[in-house]
Amino acid sequence: MRTLDPGIGEKFSRRTKRAINHDGSFNVRRRGGPHRHDPYQWLTRMDWWPFIGLLVLFFSVLNVVFALIYLALGLESLPGVMAPRGWWQDFLSALFFSIQTFTSVGYGHVYPATNGSGFVSSMEALVGVLSFALATGLLYGRFSRPTARIYFSRTAIISRRADGTPCLQFRIANQRANVLIDLQARVLLKSVNETTNDQTYALLPLERNAISFFPLSWTLVHDITPDSPLHGLQPADYARLDVEIIVQLKGYDDTFAQDVHARNSYTHDEIEWHRRFVRAYEVDDDGIAVLDLDQLHTTEALSNG
Amino acid sequence: MRTLDPGIGEKFSRRTKRAINHDGSFNVRRRGGPHRHDPYQWLTRMDWWPFIGLLVLFFSVLNVVFALIYLALGLESLPGVMAPRGWWQDFLSALFFSIQTFTSVGYGHVYPATNGSGFVSSMEALVGVLSFALATGLLYGRFSRPTARIYFSRTAIISRRADGTPCLQFRIANQRANVLIDLQARVLLKSVNETTNDQTYALLPLERNAISFFPLSWTLVHDITPDSPLHGLQPADYARLDVEIIVQLKGYDDTFAQDVHARNSYTHDEIEWHRRFVRAYEVDDDGIAVLDLDQLHTTEALSNG
Amino acid sequence: MRTLDPGIGEKFSRRTKRAINHDGSFNVRRRGGPHRHDPYQWLTRMDWWPFIGLLVLFFSVLNVVFALIYLALGLESLPGVMAPRGWWQDFLSALFFSIQTFTSVGYGHVYPATNGSGFVSSMEALVGVLSFALATGLLYGRFSRPTARIYFSRTAIISRRADGTPCLQFRIANQRANVLIDLQARVLLKSVNETTNDQTYALLPLERNAISFFPLSWTLVHDITPDSPLHGLQPADYARLDVEIIVQLKGYDDTFAQDVHARNSYTHDEIEWHRRFVRAYEVDDDGIAVLDLDQLHTTEALSNG
Amino acid sequence: MRTLDPGIGEKFSRRTKRAINHDGSFNVRRRGGPHRHDPYQWLTRMDWWPFIGLLVLFFSVLNVVFALIYLALGLESLPGVMAPRGWWQDFLSALFFSIQTFTSVGYGHVYPATNGSGFVSSMEALVGVLSFALATGLLYGRFSRPTARIYFSRTAIISRRADGTPCLQFRIANQRANVLIDLQARVLLKSVNETTNDQTYALLPLERNAISFFPLSWTLVHDITPDSPLHGLQPADYARLDVEIIVQLKGYDDTFAQDVHARNSYTHDEIEWHRRFVRAYEVDDDGIAVLDLDQLHTTEALSNG
Repeated sequence: MRTLDPGIGEKFSRRTKRAINHDGSFNVRRRGGPHRHDPYQWLTRMDWWPFIGLLVLFFSVLNVVFALIYLALGLESLPGVMAPRGWWQDFLSALFFSIQTFTSVGYGHVYPATNGSGFVSSMEALVGVLSFALATGLLYGRFSRPTARIYFSRTAIISRRADGTPCLQFRIANQRANVLIDLQARVLLKSVNETTNDQTYALLPLERNAISFFPLSWTLVHDITPDSPLHGLQPADYARLDVEIIVQLKGYDDTFAQDVHARNSYTHDEIEWHRRFVRAYEVDDDGIAVLDLDQLHTTEALSNG
Repeated sequence: MRTLDPGIGEKFSRRTKRAINHDGSFNVRRRGGPHRHDPYQWLTRMDWWPFIGLLVLFFSVLNVVFALIYLALGLESLPGVMAPRGWWQDFLSALFFSIQTFTSVGYGHVYPATNGSGFVSSMEALVGVLSFALATGLLYGRFSRPTARIYFSRTAIISRRADGTPCLQFRIANQRANVLIDLQARVLLKSVNETTNDQTYALLPLERNAISFFPLSWTLVHDITPDSPLHGLQPADYARLDVEIIVQLKGYDDTFAQDVHARNSYTHDEIEWHRRFVRAYEVDDDGIAVLDLDQLHTTEALSNG
Repeated sequence: MRTLDPGIGEKFSRRTKRAINHDGSFNVRRRGGPHRHDPYQWLTRMDWWPFIGLLVLFFSVLNVVFALIYLALGLESLPGVMAPRGWWQDFLSALFFSIQTFTSVGYGHVYPATNGSGFVSSMEALVGVLSFALATGLLYGRFSRPTARIYFSRTAIISRRADGTPCLQFRIANQRANVLIDLQARVLLKSVNETTNDQTYALLPLERNAISFFPLSWTLVHDITPDSPLHGLQPADYARLDVEIIVQLKGYDDTFAQDVHARNSYTHDEIEWHRRFVRAYEVDDDGIAVLDLDQLHTTEALSNG
Repeated sequence: MRTLDPGIGEKFSRRTKRAINHDGSFNVRRRGGPHRHDPYQWLTRMDWWPFIGLLVLFFSVLNVVFALIYLALGLESLPGVMAPRGWWQDFLSALFFSIQTFTSVGYGHVYPATNGSGFVSSMEALVGVLSFALATGLLYGRFSRPTARIYFSRTAIISRRADGTPCLQFRIANQRANVLIDLQARVLLKSVNETTNDQTYALLPLERNAISFFPLSWTLVHDITPDSPLHGLQPADYARLDVEIIVQLKGYDDTFAQDVHARNSYTHDEIEWHRRFVRAYEVDDDGIAVLDLDQLHTTEALSNG
């Protein structure tokens, strides 16, 4: 069994978690070294709600800070503020003026009447427009980042060909309605030596490792021939070897006009034995194929399993 | 005839429509599964008029909502509104103030004089600038999405070489004046089994499957030699087998600086027999080749057809 | 001589101009067909001065139109305009108000006091912010479009190797200081049949057809061995055959992080005979290679030419 | 030893500095030729602090210029300016009005009351919004430029295999937490002829020249077999030949969804002899591999070195 480390590592001091999580991430942390954080990548990859929360937080903090500066300058420098005054009302008046400046609304019923407030509000207006320039870039960066939304069957299965050959299968579909072109797949087997904890990798050849179009589901099939590193292994062996089936996908996304990648893995307890997949699409009365993504996971027992 | 499913599916319960429509889409619907909609892709791919309509609708709804909030707060909180007042005039006044805030124009003849209207207008100003940040990204995303505008001859033809070999031909040109580089083509034959409805695919080798530049028209030619899966088929066979000629194109767009893809298909009733293409370009007095896109479809009867 | 049409066409009714101009464009016009114009491509590829002129024209026309609408509504609807009034002063006042609205400055010393002017100014504010959203996208699109600035020697030369083999050479350098990676070249010979005007293409193999890095100049060399389609041709033959040397380049730009392409051609009267290139770089006292782009064209007579 | 110039040059009049600096740049300057500067590339590649400084400088200069124009027009044309007046106070008032116009805040307590100030402030508002459109594009361009942050071990080492074969090694890791896919490496040896200063290049084959994923460190190994151009060379030979190990890396960045490149080199005095790398990662209690970037450089003496 020729080893073929895909870069995940062969020598480990002890057992590791699965190499690849279902979201495509690796179970690796890094520490030390220079410049570990890249704010653009971080802000582009985080979920939407935390991102919006950060935007609001940034907006709030900045405006509160500017409001406090205006208070420190004295509200005499901002004619037009609301009466009756008190520290809370003063703060609110300064805050509203700050926001009107930051967003460049500038109604003008409150305005900077001194050099101090003129200077601070000028700076705030500049910071404001640049902030929205940044926000524009971040929002576009988030939206336009090409990502593949490949939907994987929850389990891989060990099935059987018509001629009796056992095979490893799993199934994928595109969650989105856009078209992926020239989709390529590579499947690796990771197994762990019980004694040394060394990890070994082997390529699992596929019946077909690329398709031109991907409008429907695609069942990836590795025949467990005598040449296969899976040949002769029983469920207990899969557990003993801590087997992990690593899947790497690459295709061209027709909407983003860029290549997209996806990856996933099946651990030994995510493999079902003696099952087969139920077809996930049917043809409706209009001659249109209807793909049911919920059916992607549906398997049934092999009749002669 | 070796089968070569390009991912469109081989086993169907009944006859399907053509695999690929003239706009490059597939006759597939999807249901179930998580996160089926991606607003960015949807907003980027829709036509311009619906997109502009959505922009106007979004702008209108948001401003009407904010106008109603200002009305609920009472127009006393917005000094400067027009007189005489009435509910319709009040609504319009609140709406105009809302739009002035949303677009950050903020003339200031109407202004927020209470904490309530100060807070709401602050929120609206923030929502406004972020909305235009989003619109900026969407507009750029729509414009900059690389798309190939390949113009296909309306029909494919069965023609005949000088040496008598029959051949399948169709013709393409670039609708746009930009240059496509390293344009590659792949042509597949889809045929359907009358009894089982199984779909079979076969690659149709081309005389030339790539060109370096694409300033003129390109005639793609598949010779129907004894090796060809089309060999010996008559028009009636094309209909019986529900023949579909599937075309996949890929090239580099010099303006977008990215790869672009196009696809199309010809069904059996879009194939003309015993025709040949009339040349679609001529050389003018300046030595410039003039390509007439309207001529792309023009065929004439074979003299000895 | 195997022909290899790169997509430029083989059969022409009469002689054409050079296939590729020095700016990389083709001598082809197109007419007929649908959707020939793509405003984004046009606005992205035009020169800077016409683009800025268009921006200013767009801004001016739109604001004049809105100014005329405000005039038609009557300046009574815009309190605060300057006195004394007259039609020219009224127009200017309306124009200034329009620009203040369009750019969302909105000082407010002039403001919309009626429903009519309130509605029109609301529309103008929306049009304004969307226009600047568009301009943002266009400016970014223009800047970020990856283009190769390959500088070609003005002439190709017929030179001679140390072993006496004649060779065709030309030289390129990168005009910009950025780095091109994995630069690949393909060179074709176009020759025209005197009688039929048919154009024939042949690949000219290069001594080296790719380099990893491109910080200096690169001399591309085709040896005129007995296998070469140029073998035995004299200057008069080059003219008779209307020889054109077509060059296609492709590389990865490290700043744009995208592939870039360039092309050019040398016609028979842009080929110098019995010359060699003078080296275009030297090493300065700091051990830094200094490339002189002006020297790229410098050739000298072959001593034994 | 077959030479393989990667485009860095073979013939030099004298010794040059290292070919590639640690930041990936080349020791080449260019002069002459047309259009050498590309402002977008320059503004996109410069460091953040100079960029922000330029932004502030641009903003300041433009507003001072406009302020001086308003002063020249006379502050009578801008009613509402602060009192008492004097040339400094007048300048500040004009500057604040200018900034309020440039950022489109436009409070309106100061406003243009004449045709002259109306025209100038209209122009400034246009220049302002277009400037922020440009800044938006530049900020996005800076953020979204795909760059690989490959961390190289400070030194390359000459180590020894278990079977006694000497080998050249160096080690890399990804500074960022994002995932690089299909990372490919090419390593070249540059050596300089003592007499002629001619530079010779040779490819150094690697044990493995590509990995699928790059979550951990990757040790690149060239075995110094009898075929290797390094075979038999001693430290003194490395210095005499001015040896430079040139490294070129290419991979797909999962966040930017684009290919990224990196390069570096090791000169003869950056090579340690008879060392080996200490493993840079360990597995923590959760089964997560922890990569310590600071350990990337750590070597230890070969026990039998």
